[in-house]
Order: sequence, then structure tokens, then C-alpha cells
Amino acid sequence: MIKYIALYRRPDDPGAFDEKYFGSHLDLVGNTPGLLRTEVAKVRRVFVPGFLGESEPYLVAEMYFADEAAMKAALQSPEWQVAGANLSEIGGLDLVAMFAAEVLS
Amino acid sequence: MIKYIALYRRPDDPGAFDEKYFGSHLDLVGNTPGLLRTEVAKVRRVFVPGFLGESEPYLVAEMYFADEAAMKAALQSPEWQVAGANLSEIGGLDLVAMFAAEVLS
Repeated sequence: MIKYIALYRRPDDPGAFDEKYFGSHLDLVGNTPGLLRTEVAKVRRVFVPGFLGESEPYLVAEMYFADEAAMKAALQSPEWQVAGANLSEIGGLDLVAMFAAEVLS
Repeated sequence: MIKYIALYRRPDDPGAFDEKYFGSHLDLVGNTPGLLRTEVAKVRRVFVPGFLGESEPYLVAEMYFADEAAMKAALQSPEWQVAGANLSEIGGLDLVAMFAAEVLS
């Protein structure tokens, strides 16, 4: 199992961001072929800022795929492209770090 | 549901870190009272470094608790303190950012 992680830092206007993220972006992500599950979590407290430094984590979205091949296919799908374009439109690209991680346990 | 997230940046010697992290730390974390589940994932590819800047994400550990009260109690437990001391011993504190996030979906 592998997951594609989108870690967002706190937007200047969290309310406006949430409206667009939960109102449009998340539904578009949900259309991605091969996507098994999406887990979205809102950061409530930072205990150790560590190497995140001055950027406050805000939201973590994790998209699960069966394996790397399924994720690769998903990232090339038209549905993913549409979701990516939407993320750019709603100003999310300036806020996010994205990486993929293999689930070990 | 709430999860305590430990995001590690890449250690100088990943092999040595893994040996200690998987050989001792993870077992100690597993002793924490109220811990429902731990999911550990190893970063395989960074797509958008974004605000993580020059720090390369390496490992993500997510510890799930039923609610904030359960997490708070866990963080005050002797077992958690032991795991924390171990993390310091194995050099993990210099590598990690830690925050808690409410699971929305």
C-alpha cells in the first residue's frame, strides 16, 4: 500500500481556503481512478515545530493506492489533472508539500 | 478520532536511524495506553517540496487515539515518556516535527 500525502501549511484565510478545499477540491480528488481511500485531517496543535520551522502545518490529506503502479496510473489520469488544476485555481499550490510514502505497518 | 503525527526529515545515516527506530522506538510507542493504531510510512518520492524547502521528508508515523482526551492522557503516561526519552537517545528529536490532527474523513 502506498499513500500520496499532501501537507498544507496554514493559509492566510483558513475559512476561505476550507470553503474551496472542502467545497470543490476534495470531490475532484475523489474521482481519481484507483484511489482506495482518502483521509483528511485538520491540525489542532503543534507540539514540536522541528524542521517545519516557521510554516505551521494546517491540513493533511492522504490518498491511498494499492501499490506504486496504481498510484502512477492515477497521477497520469485526466481526473487527477482536473483536481490539480483546481488546486492551482483555489491557491492551494502555494501552500502544499506533496510526497508519496509506502505504508509499512 | 485524532492522530498524533511525527514527520521525520531524512537522517544523515538512514540505515542507522532505521535500525534504532524500528528496532526499539516503535515498540516503545506501541506501549502507549489508549493508542488505537500506529501507521508508519516511508517516503519514496517527493513530488512538490513546497514549504518543506530543503528538508526532505523521510518517515511519517501516525498514532491514532479515540479523541483528544484519550490523546492527552496518553501524552502524560509514563509509557509515552519512556518512548520520548528513547527518541532523544536515538537522535530522533533533531529530525522530527510533531503535531496532532483531527481526522475529518
